[in-house]
Amino acid sequence: MTTRKPSTFVCTITPFDAEARLDDEAAMVLYGRLASAGVGAYVGSSSPGEGYALSLSETERLYGIALAAVDGRVPIRAMGVEPHTPEQLASLIRLAESCHLDAMQLYCLDAGHGNKPNPAELERYFRGLLETMRLPAVLSSHVFNGYVVEPELVDRLLRDYEHVIGINVTNPDIAYVSRIIDVVDGRADVHVGGPMQAVSALALGAQGFLGTEGNLDPSACAAVIEHYRAGNLAETFAAYSKIIRLFSMNVWPGGSMRWLKAAMKVLGLPGWHLRPPWLALDDDAHARIAVQLEALGVTGR
Amino acid sequence: MTTRKPSTFVCTITPFDAEARLDDEAAMVLYGRLASAGVGAYVGSSSPGEGYALSLSETERLYGIALAAVDGRVPIRAMGVEPHTPEQLASLIRLAESCHLDAMQLYCLDAGHGNKPNPAELERYFRGLLETMRLPAVLSSHVFNGYVVEPELVDRLLRDYEHVIGINVTNPDIAYVSRIIDVVDGRADVHVGGPMQAVSALALGAQGFLGTEGNLDPSACAAVIEHYRAGNLAETFAAYSKIIRLFSMNVWPGGSMRWLKAAMKVLGLPGWHLRPPWLALDDDAHARIAVQLEALGVTGR
Amino acid sequence: MTTRKPSTFVCTITPFDAEARLDDEAAMVLYGRLASAGVGAYVGSSSPGEGYALSLSETERLYGIALAAVDGRVPIRAMGVEPHTPEQLASLIRLAESCHLDAMQLYCLDAGHGNKPNPAELERYFRGLLETMRLPAVLSSHVFNGYVVEPELVDRLLRDYEHVIGINVTNPDIAYVSRIIDVVDGRADVHVGGPMQAVSALALGAQGFLGTEGNLDPSACAAVIEHYRAGNLAETFAAYSKIIRLFSMNVWPGGSMRWLKAAMKVLGLPGWHLRPPWLALDDDAHARIAVQLEALGVTGR
Amino acid sequence: MTTRKPSTFVCTITPFDAEARLDDEAAMVLYGRLASAGVGAYVGSSSPGEGYALSLSETERLYGIALAAVDGRVPIRAMGVEPHTPEQLASLIRLAESCHLDAMQLYCLDAGHGNKPNPAELERYFRGLLETMRLPAVLSSHVFNGYVVEPELVDRLLRDYEHVIGINVTNPDIAYVSRIIDVVDGRADVHVGGPMQAVSALALGAQGFLGTEGNLDPSACAAVIEHYRAGNLAETFAAYSKIIRLFSMNVWPGGSMRWLKAAMKVLGLPGWHLRPPWLALDDDAHARIAVQLEALGVTGR
Repeated sequence: MTTRKPSTFVCTITPFDAEARLDDEAAMVLYGRLASAGVGAYVGSSSPGEGYALSLSETERLYGIALAAVDGRVPIRAMGVEPHTPEQLASLIRLAESCHLDAMQLYCLDAGHGNKPNPAELERYFRGLLETMRLPAVLSSHVFNGYVVEPELVDRLLRDYEHVIGINVTNPDIAYVSRIIDVVDGRADVHVGGPMQAVSALALGAQGFLGTEGNLDPSACAAVIEHYRAGNLAETFAAYSKIIRLFSMNVWPGGSMRWLKAAMKVLGLPGWHLRPPWLALDDDAHARIAVQLEALGVTGR
Repeated sequence: MTTRKPSTFVCTITPFDAEARLDDEAAMVLYGRLASAGVGAYVGSSSPGEGYALSLSETERLYGIALAAVDGRVPIRAMGVEPHTPEQLASLIRLAESCHLDAMQLYCLDAGHGNKPNPAELERYFRGLLETMRLPAVLSSHVFNGYVVEPELVDRLLRDYEHVIGINVTNPDIAYVSRIIDVVDGRADVHVGGPMQAVSALALGAQGFLGTEGNLDPSACAAVIEHYRAGNLAETFAAYSKIIRLFSMNVWPGGSMRWLKAAMKVLGLPGWHLRPPWLALDDDAHARIAVQLEALGVTGR
Repeated sequence: MTTRKPSTFVCTITPFDAEARLDDEAAMVLYGRLASAGVGAYVGSSSPGEGYALSLSETERLYGIALAAVDGRVPIRAMGVEPHTPEQLASLIRLAESCHLDAMQLYCLDAGHGNKPNPAELERYFRGLLETMRLPAVLSSHVFNGYVVEPELVDRLLRDYEHVIGINVTNPDIAYVSRIIDVVDGRADVHVGGPMQAVSALALGAQGFLGTEGNLDPSACAAVIEHYRAGNLAETFAAYSKIIRLFSMNVWPGGSMRWLKAAMKVLGLPGWHLRPPWLALDDDAHARIAVQLEALGVTGR
Repeated sequence: MTTRKPSTFVCTITPFDAEARLDDEAAMVLYGRLASAGVGAYVGSSSPGEGYALSLSETERLYGIALAAVDGRVPIRAMGVEPHTPEQLASLIRLAESCHLDAMQLYCLDAGHGNKPNPAELERYFRGLLETMRLPAVLSSHVFNGYVVEPELVDRLLRDYEHVIGINVTNPDIAYVSRIIDVVDGRADVHVGGPMQAVSALALGAQGFLGTEGNLDPSACAAVIEHYRAGNLAETFAAYSKIIRLFSMNVWPGGSMRWLKAAMKVLGLPGWHLRPPWLALDDDAHARIAVQLEALGVTGR
């Protein structure tokens, strides 16, 4: 269907130290692991990256560390956060451009308190951002905040803006994912959000998936893509299966941050502290996670 | 993980004639096509089989036609309907037993008007049915009516009832699907409901999937399983992709019956009438469906 | 706005004895209490009346007892159940007509398994039932099963069928309730389902509310209407407040049957048994309910 | 139940001029109208106040105008916005304190992207804010972002912080509203969010309601409270009915801003422009609103 190269990206946590300060050394370890495994990174995300809690200068520092750690081996992209106003995301875009990241994802507007742009307003929002940026852009269509970006809008934006290089689609409705893949038609990369639909999306012609599991086991994420490219069904499915079992360990509601950082602590990975008001999972949870990670063969190496 | 044989089943429509009578000849055609393609059938379903509109004697006739048409080439199972009371499903179980179907699925209780059994009551319900039946049974865990059957209950029922030969899991949460596969642990077949998670489920160790698309293109459904068994990644994915594109054609809300029967009419397959109060899709819809089926290469042969 | 008389109706439980048989004497007590308090009754409901578990002959017996117990003092209406097919509700209509009940409510179709009629099919359903019945009819627009009956359809049915004497509206959206009241415009009674919006609906021009609380305290329900008719604000609000506090005692999910019957047992009212698979609440729940009922001053007299 | 004085507050829009600048004169008109009608105001809200689009200095200017316009006749409170981090709300608290507003509402955290604090984290969040503020505080329990603040937490915060003078409860579940009223038990004012439950809440012992309708017709909002205090049932209900019919005019999804500002334009009130990316409703909508406002007797005087 297309000759675009399959790939996967990790939506990275942001490492903090015991005083909840940005932990530069832990960030070097994190992004170094990803580069060694050969998977790209999305940096500074609203989740699990605690991106809203980062000042612009901290985000800038984090971008710099990520770029330095991977040293060109894998792409480093800005994830951005869902902004309350276009101006809030524009600030992050300017920052990503000045740091020379590889690309920047553009979330839909999180207008807050039940407010939601109608299709015309959403198009106005995206065009306003795309007109003023030079960095390669990746559109986001994410079911959070109730967004199902119309395939026709994706088509129009792809026609009008050559620097749109991808779209990240997070939607449990595989029919919608299929429609997006068809409308994009090879003009940009399509990645699904989360590992849930990873093999389904590859089967439908997408380039791959995003996920948080690579914060813990980047090699398993890379393996899905590598075996798929080699045409090895059994190995592709086995790698996918490992990631889903890792994904399924998180039974704590309200986001993946607490679970991911608990698992990092269990694995001996640095930077597992959370910023207030978030609280770490309790000791029982850590013990349970330790047993599960061992059973699945996930280590911090 | 298991040596259970992969498979797929079609949740069949019920063919009616122009006077909304059960259409025996059309049923022969339908089940004959499935047998030729090598896929089993679930018969008399609440959806898309309009099962609630069938009298017990009509259901008995339909069971008989299905068995005669396939003549042992593929399994014929009773799908049942979500009953309002245990007694309603017990009547269907007795019928399926007397007709010597291959198995019977047991839906959860649809208690109506927001009533829902708690876990203890649901267990009481399943045990009450399983105690009195001799036919092989397939449990259902379906997100409709809000059910997420606890993995622990599935485990207990598998321990206590040897005639539970399968579980059909319909839930968009792949983590839950994964937990069910793990708790079943090869003691029964696991099929996911709908084609959405077909390859994901195979990757996780399930035996396959159910779907309605086989009413139109049974060979494509069979192809997913055959290529998977042969270890052919590209062909497995291509067959899956075709089914999802077929699945994605249905953009009419409120169930798949109207769309399936419109597509049957377009393909020249008999039995495409609906029972009141259901109304056929309009001419524009049929024209649109015709174009899409042709583009996808789906025919009535 | 209208000179229609305000009123309230109790959606009654169905009393069973210790062997889960219909308890005729308990039913006499129940309907006698309602008549003494001056409130009408809806009989044989899907909830909390366990209506799906009643055979047609049991329903007929229950209708007869209710009529005999109230002896013309208050209206006795058939509530019906959400049917899977129009024919199922037609059977109940025939029964209500032969028993000479005062009216029959027509629920929307519960087509099962995610099937849902579109607006044209829903109109076809209602017209099919209304054409063949002579008993006064009450339309239902209930948010369960996802129904928000279009105000325009209500208008058309009121124009075409003189025997539509009321509409029961159960929808948390007060704007929708307001639109229904406006479109009905005094041509029929409007009651809201449940006590939640009782005073809001009266304020907007509806005739009153339905509720299950009258199974326990029919006088409090009657008091809301009586004080409202007398123009006594403080007493109207006090009676409403008592009902809402009674309503708020039910913290057990999955319907009100278990809680209502537990409260009946606590109050010494007969008929508090449930039919399988339903299980009675545990002793702790009964003890808690006893304390709450005493604090609120609710007794079985 | 309590001797607390009933009241209502208007959640105010923020007036902008044709260039989308804060419109000081229009703000004087807006807050002057409220003061004349005798209703208090919440200022700078996320909705409908476009609060996220205001810089801190603009918010400060708006606070000042509101205080000057009402000149002590009615209370002026900061509404705040749902913050992504505690620090974001702390900035607004500092501002409200320095401007000497009458009180400040504390929204729950909008952690973004599906993240949500658990009960312990939510308590940590509220305590962190309450510890550092001296201004009277009003807690918010709002169903948006999925919050149902536990009654026990409300109780603990009321015990520990004397400067909590109120709680604003926005939840369609009247049982929950009732539980909050009971746990507060006269220690603070309880207002429900929106006019939907205005009379229900008064009946249950709350002090009143918040709403946006007072941006258009502040006298009608005041009338509900005045007539309720005078014990006039018919007039209380008539005023409530007018507000609900005004509320029900908004049939445009995605928030109330567009509708409110369109109605302001129709009524000849200044400041009806929106900030990008929001777009004004079209001419047909304005024409429809004009007819409806005239029919309801709402004017800009």
